[in-house]
Amino acid sequence: MKYVNFDKMPVYKKLADFAAMLPAQSSGKASFNFRAMLNAKRVAACVTPMAAGLKYSWAAKAVNDEAVLLLQELANEQELIAKYKALLNGEIMNTGEKRKVLHHLSRGELGQPVIEDGKNIGDFYRRELARFCSFADAVHQGKFKGSKGDSFTTVIQIGIGGSDLGPRALYLALKNWAQTAGKKRLNAEFISNVDPDDASQVIASSPLEKSLFILVSKSGTTQETLSNELFVKDKLLKAGLDPSRHMIAVTSETSPLARNSAYLDSFYIDDYIGGRYSSSSAVGGCVLSLAFGPEVFGEFLSGAAEADALALNENILENAALLDALIGVWERNFLNYPYTAVLPYSQALSRFPAHLQQMDMESNGKRVNRSGENINYQTGPVIFGEPGTNGQHSFYQLLHQGTGIVPLQFIGFLESQRNDDITVDSSVSQTKLAANLAAQIVAFAKGQDSEDKNKEFPGGRPSSLIYGKKLTPASLGSLLAHFENKVMFQGFVWNVNSFDQEGVQLGKILTKKVLSGNFGDDALEAYSRLLIN
Amino acid sequence: MKYVNFDKMPVYKKLADFAAMLPAQSSGKASFNFRAMLNAKRVAACVTPMAAGLKYSWAAKAVNDEAVLLLQELANEQELIAKYKALLNGEIMNTGEKRKVLHHLSRGELGQPVIEDGKNIGDFYRRELARFCSFADAVHQGKFKGSKGDSFTTVIQIGIGGSDLGPRALYLALKNWAQTAGKKRLNAEFISNVDPDDASQVIASSPLEKSLFILVSKSGTTQETLSNELFVKDKLLKAGLDPSRHMIAVTSETSPLARNSAYLDSFYIDDYIGGRYSSSSAVGGCVLSLAFGPEVFGEFLSGAAEADALALNENILENAALLDALIGVWERNFLNYPYTAVLPYSQALSRFPAHLQQMDMESNGKRVNRSGENINYQTGPVIFGEPGTNGQHSFYQLLHQGTGIVPLQFIGFLESQRNDDITVDSSVSQTKLAANLAAQIVAFAKGQDSEDKNKEFPGGRPSSLIYGKKLTPASLGSLLAHFENKVMFQGFVWNVNSFDQEGVQLGKILTKKVLSGNFGDDALEAYSRLLIN
Repeated sequence: MKYVNFDKMPVYKKLADFAAMLPAQSSGKASFNFRAMLNAKRVAACVTPMAAGLKYSWAAKAVNDEAVLLLQELANEQELIAKYKALLNGEIMNTGEKRKVLHHLSRGELGQPVIEDGKNIGDFYRRELARFCSFADAVHQGKFKGSKGDSFTTVIQIGIGGSDLGPRALYLALKNWAQTAGKKRLNAEFISNVDPDDASQVIASSPLEKSLFILVSKSGTTQETLSNELFVKDKLLKAGLDPSRHMIAVTSETSPLARNSAYLDSFYIDDYIGGRYSSSSAVGGCVLSLAFGPEVFGEFLSGAAEADALALNENILENAALLDALIGVWERNFLNYPYTAVLPYSQALSRFPAHLQQMDMESNGKRVNRSGENINYQTGPVIFGEPGTNGQHSFYQLLHQGTGIVPLQFIGFLESQRNDDITVDSSVSQTKLAANLAAQIVAFAKGQDSEDKNKEFPGGRPSSLIYGKKLTPASLGSLLAHFENKVMFQGFVWNVNSFDQEGVQLGKILTKKVLSGNFGDDALEAYSRLLIN
Repeated sequence: MKYVNFDKMPVYKKLADFAAMLPAQSSGKASFNFRAMLNAKRVAACVTPMAAGLKYSWAAKAVNDEAVLLLQELANEQELIAKYKALLNGEIMNTGEKRKVLHHLSRGELGQPVIEDGKNIGDFYRRELARFCSFADAVHQGKFKGSKGDSFTTVIQIGIGGSDLGPRALYLALKNWAQTAGKKRLNAEFISNVDPDDASQVIASSPLEKSLFILVSKSGTTQETLSNELFVKDKLLKAGLDPSRHMIAVTSETSPLARNSAYLDSFYIDDYIGGRYSSSSAVGGCVLSLAFGPEVFGEFLSGAAEADALALNENILENAALLDALIGVWERNFLNYPYTAVLPYSQALSRFPAHLQQMDMESNGKRVNRSGENINYQTGPVIFGEPGTNGQHSFYQLLHQGTGIVPLQFIGFLESQRNDDITVDSSVSQTKLAANLAAQIVAFAKGQDSEDKNKEFPGGRPSSLIYGKKLTPASLGSLLAHFENKVMFQGFVWNVNSFDQEGVQLGKILTKKVLSGNFGDDALEAYSRLLIN
């Protein structure tokens, strides 16, 4: 297996030549003529199944048969499936930090057993899964209570970045479903920011005596999380509560938080599960199991595991994550689009774009290859998004009529989660939601001519659509793993290490300088004086 | 006064020539050498005062004295202040819809009285302000009660786009401040999406008998809002409540919602206040006055009015909104950065970037000039953002080490809103928050060399900083008006109409086709079949 910079591959030149042959469209950019190309036949044909009943529709993407062949060639030439298998088998894929990358193993075992120093890491993950599921059951059965004897009604996660965005997005994604399905056990809240107003506000509005806190920090050294832990413990003590009976920890076995009597219990992950990929580990599992029950978290894991298995397919037309990844590379490197919008037509996915923003931008926002050498092509795009239809009344103006082209990733479901709807003008709101989504795809692709240039829509805005019956634990797992695997495949194409984040370090170093008063840079000192009382 | 396309102005060529002379920096892009340029003296010098005690620091922006002179020349040549004055005086600045643009008048009167058909529009806005303030007082005094006799504890706004994002962002921005200051009167909730799960969830978690709804739709025809109105009314009726005693309307005088006995009262705006600029009108004013009291909303308006007055200054070094606008144009058109991130170091501003995203992208995401002719230069950038420090643990990786350069807009305050903090390792969390912010500015600007290319930070990432003592109603008004005026000035530079949104229309038309079953396009029909049960 070879690791080659993207622009050194023979297929790179072929793709560039192919892009150069494309005619400029009404949008002003080289692309395909969607008005001619996008018809019912293509919509029916360009669908790739995903896990848990979801489907990936790419009819409105700027690829034709020839492009698909080249992308398949790229997948083969860059050995994307072989690299995925190597990752599953425990090869060191986080080259910078010299670590394995094993988040897939937190929800299934598709490769060979990963053994290190005689320890089977899959067994370790499964043991922790069983432990935190048992713990959640015990809380639900009332075996643990607050230090004044109250049953827990609220779980509050203290964590930042990957310990916050993913778990929060998933909790919000399932909250309505769980309420309707009678699976809602505890309310969940989240404290992340070092801004003291964040913790203060959550604490002020939560029933402390009935609250169980989850402290999440893999290293046990995250500045924000440790400050917020002490903030919370101070409030617990002032309320006459025993913090050690109101807090569990999720951390690594080597962290200062591990096996510490300050916590009711501790659950473990390791360095092979990166923060932004930790939602299917104890980082997401504790809070989701406590909120909805372990069986709901289990369904979520099953959906993710099924998606991971589908991602092994060498045929890009049968591998949605791989196809999505390759189309994204085509858009980024050959159509030269610097951003992608994620637009779920589901209020439950309100924070899912923020999680994908981290997952994608932190993974592939890199300018060196996996060996630490500079590269000469674009890598990860800027990711942003908000739920539709809200976004339609906001930033879609630029998407339709701006001077740049933003590729779009739509997500939609046939059914609502709460089954609580109203008929207005002969249709329910869920139908209106779906009608808007269908309309947007076609409007972006085909545009509209007009004598009045202000009412002209150039079209040529490519989009894909992930759709399914309903947002459930299993389909959410499928959705999450789809994007994780998409980002992984793109990292392989670009030959970057998608699993470290050295870009966060310099800020930490300079923050310490400010806090110690040893600035070492007069501009840093000057800014500190502007901002600190 | 002349309206000229940007690329036809003599100064456009000068700016382009100046940019072409800049050397490539370590970031690989033409720019300035921040390591040499950014020092304490520059930090002290490059500060422009804003309203309500805020300041705009632009030391870490990629402009030197020569660039500032050219930008001043641009401001003069494109007659930006004269155009602003014309707008204030009631000239038709929304050329597409042939409307005046009068949101400034909802918080002050800087121009001549705007009279139309004998009606003084400023008087109209002031009359409505007085009316909804009186209404809020009456609610607080218990003069209005729910139909079962309960005092109102909750206000729920039903609106979408500008009727949702701005009011919601402002409510969240002031909620903690108001609680701490003893000004919190009512809880506020928001229903926006046509996704029925949105309304259903808000209704299920709100005390209906104590809830007052605000229905906000200028036209009275917004599909999402009307569906949600009927959704809510159905729930009120099922709860045995009289909807007409639980709902007020904010609309235009000519809408079907006006003077309608279905509402407890109605408050009016007109076509001269665009949705995304309506936060300082009844659209934001009703909910904020009900939540925090009219005097708090009044302080907010004063901060905005003061900012509007400062924006009249012809000297760009004394006009923060104008300077910010011009630097943004420099970045967009000459340094060729296609996006901007908004990064408030304040959890209270968690939804402020989403509001700015609408304000900016919907205003300047245009590809024709104000006369409806195609233009040949870039207009509004993609705007995205999340609060720091959260973002540091998320997408900042790409901002620091990605292949593209994203200009940054930081916002920070010296004091928290809730005055509830903890000392850990010799500093309070608010100090840590500020230290992180100072550190990021310098890290982005100066970067860091390293033998290990993976730990190298190219720097050259420009940022500006808006800072002040505390986020209060007045400073929030200043902040909002700053960005509104910045976007306005950029629209003048680009010679576009920043006040219409024709880009939302095609989706509405196609949605109607789907809902009527007269698709007129087989791809539209095919997508609808995928998405509708």
